[in-house]
Amino acid sequence: MLIHSASQTLTLAGGPQRGSELGDLGLIKDGALLIRDGKIAAIGTTSELREAYPAEETLNAAGRVVMPGFVDPHTHALWAGDRAAEFEMRLQGKTYLEIMAAGGGILSTVRATRKASLEELLAQTRPRLQAAFSYGTTTMEAKSGYGLNTATELRMLDALLALNEETPLDIVPTFLGAHAFPPEYKENPQSYTNLVCDEMLQALHSWTTGQNNRKGKAIPLPFVDVFCETGAFTLAQSRQILESAQKLGFPLKVHADEFDNLGGSSLAAELGAASADHLVVTSPEDMAALAASDTVAVGLPCTPFGLAEPEYTPAQEILAAGGILAIATDLNPGTAWCESMQFAIALVCRYMKLTPAQAIAAATINAAAAIQRDHVVGSLQVGKRADILLLNVPDYRHLGYRFGTNLVHTVIKNGQIYSNEEKYEF
Amino acid sequence: MLIHSASQTLTLAGGPQRGSELGDLGLIKDGALLIRDGKIAAIGTTSELREAYPAEETLNAAGRVVMPGFVDPHTHALWAGDRAAEFEMRLQGKTYLEIMAAGGGILSTVRATRKASLEELLAQTRPRLQAAFSYGTTTMEAKSGYGLNTATELRMLDALLALNEETPLDIVPTFLGAHAFPPEYKENPQSYTNLVCDEMLQALHSWTTGQNNRKGKAIPLPFVDVFCETGAFTLAQSRQILESAQKLGFPLKVHADEFDNLGGSSLAAELGAASADHLVVTSPEDMAALAASDTVAVGLPCTPFGLAEPEYTPAQEILAAGGILAIATDLNPGTAWCESMQFAIALVCRYMKLTPAQAIAAATINAAAAIQRDHVVGSLQVGKRADILLLNVPDYRHLGYRFGTNLVHTVIKNGQIYSNEEKYEF
Repeated sequence: MLIHSASQTLTLAGGPQRGSELGDLGLIKDGALLIRDGKIAAIGTTSELREAYPAEETLNAAGRVVMPGFVDPHTHALWAGDRAAEFEMRLQGKTYLEIMAAGGGILSTVRATRKASLEELLAQTRPRLQAAFSYGTTTMEAKSGYGLNTATELRMLDALLALNEETPLDIVPTFLGAHAFPPEYKENPQSYTNLVCDEMLQALHSWTTGQNNRKGKAIPLPFVDVFCETGAFTLAQSRQILESAQKLGFPLKVHADEFDNLGGSSLAAELGAASADHLVVTSPEDMAALAASDTVAVGLPCTPFGLAEPEYTPAQEILAAGGILAIATDLNPGTAWCESMQFAIALVCRYMKLTPAQAIAAATINAAAAIQRDHVVGSLQVGKRADILLLNVPDYRHLGYRFGTNLVHTVIKNGQIYSNEEKYEF
Repeated sequence: MLIHSASQTLTLAGGPQRGSELGDLGLIKDGALLIRDGKIAAIGTTSELREAYPAEETLNAAGRVVMPGFVDPHTHALWAGDRAAEFEMRLQGKTYLEIMAAGGGILSTVRATRKASLEELLAQTRPRLQAAFSYGTTTMEAKSGYGLNTATELRMLDALLALNEETPLDIVPTFLGAHAFPPEYKENPQSYTNLVCDEMLQALHSWTTGQNNRKGKAIPLPFVDVFCETGAFTLAQSRQILESAQKLGFPLKVHADEFDNLGGSSLAAELGAASADHLVVTSPEDMAALAASDTVAVGLPCTPFGLAEPEYTPAQEILAAGGILAIATDLNPGTAWCESMQFAIALVCRYMKLTPAQAIAAATINAAAAIQRDHVVGSLQVGKRADILLLNVPDYRHLGYRFGTNLVHTVIKNGQIYSNEEKYEF
């Protein structure tokens, strides 16, 4: 199939964009793309490709912007229950401790998720994936971390495998057993840390060999992530978990510097983690460490927005230091129930002062690098997956400029077309 | 038709909600509604209505939340062109004067709108109305004000009449000839003010009698609005225009206190305007004047968000003074291209500290009062229009809690059903 007559085709060709390189869209005017077998087979101008492939079935982009599908490299998309009541309590001025005392906070999601069967988890998560997809996310990282015991954590990962199979999205799984301390280990955080290292990571490794996962065959090792934060895992505990995971061959990620700087982002750089995420109170030393590494700095703008906190990731400083910056939604039931990467772009234009071009690169090729998928998605290049968006706008800068709605007209995933056009017209 | 089995039916019955009354949802559990001839004919519980109307055709709300359609009481939905390039310049740190020098700002929209034919205006505006409608807005105020000469201002109002006829939305028109000074009057603002009072308002009045409007018959008088602000119309000029309009019988509105407090909101209260809008730097004295009147205070949260300004309408103080608070999108091409009242609700929960219940009342019954339509829309009551939303959520507090996507499952306008359900499922 030949997609032609795009006003602007954003190829994002050339790999992850570091520091001041960020924002190179590889823009082709009046561009066209050839799709074969779910992959991009050729790319050029409309006249070039129509001449080269005159008999090809065509899709007229009709002056729309064509770009790679969004990659959302940090989500907690899988959970049971909701926390709408907690949101209201926060608006009424209730403190975090009062909310905890009323049964709220992350452990309320843990309770609901532990109770949920695999089928219930799937049923509650599907609409979120549908929303993310219709807003243009074609590859999504998603974490466990609402189980906090071996059985529920593996059930969550099985659910992610199932969703990867049954939906068009590529779901990239991450094990986040070190998300919080479960109530039964409230007084023994070190014991829980040891449990993660000794029991859970072993069980996870066995699971990936196919011993007990739902596919019954070996699957790639998921990421292992740690929430390194005051009230969650200390730097020493984070190191213990990440080093244990690394010994078993798992690729790493770190939640760092959301509220307090414990050194998590420098640890991520030191261990060669794929990414360090949140990064609100990151120091110049941490930024230098990240910039000297291939660890991607992932800003999560929906989280301060969701909490109405004024501080966002210091993106300009990270770029000035030479870091690789990506953005993600952080989709989760507590602080950021937002499936839309378009909205993350609108936020980072305003609160991280990224241009639309920078935000788009951070949401595609650099986001793919944050989950080590930049060789297969994140740009429009020959051989990559045909994960493509047609935007209902004449200029890419409408991303960022406009907010709160959906500018995606058509999502193409592995070459298959899904249209967002309204069922009714007026 | 009988809509039944809503988890929560928000009736908002009882008229505009003043001060601390704000947030009375009139919630019915397991509610039902009877629709006849496009109006609400009965309301109660599912068991009551199914017993009373056993043979009625039914629509199963299936545990969704049912509520009145949103009323968006302040938009500039009609314009030609876009200002994406200006948005990017602002992100790059360009000043307002630099943007003006590069041909940006409101006058760039005036240039494009003057050049556009009625048909071009309609074609460019329709997708915005479609977006607003799919996000749940069933009644929308919309202003002229990008013509700034008599012919273009009336063409804009004719376009609004046409869109009111051809779309399911109720479009409530406002004349905003006093939006800015056109380039040809740059050196003579008082002359332009006199032109508005002497020529434009007379022409507008003749237009409403059917002499030259596209319907060819008498129509209700539109609102007359003034942008009372430093760089726009002084307090004296605003008074001159509003008093001229009032003498001709026009109902009034005022843009007041967006950047500087010139006294516009007290003027609105003094003259009995339907609303005073923006209200960011409103003083305690102004709030007292508004509270002593029936003039609705309309907060426009998308505008500071769009500009990344930290200051929003001081909603808590307005409520404490006893004012009637509504919210609107301010949809416009310069500062807030956002069609979604759901997103306005997400903003006011965070930045005006309204609860979801208060935000919903401000977006429905109080918004209807801000455009003097609270007798026909804004609540689910017998005799009112069957303008109804089914939300894809189990609890109304998901409005506000969740952001950046569309929670509306079905829009019902005058009893007619429009479904947002995806064309594709996975």
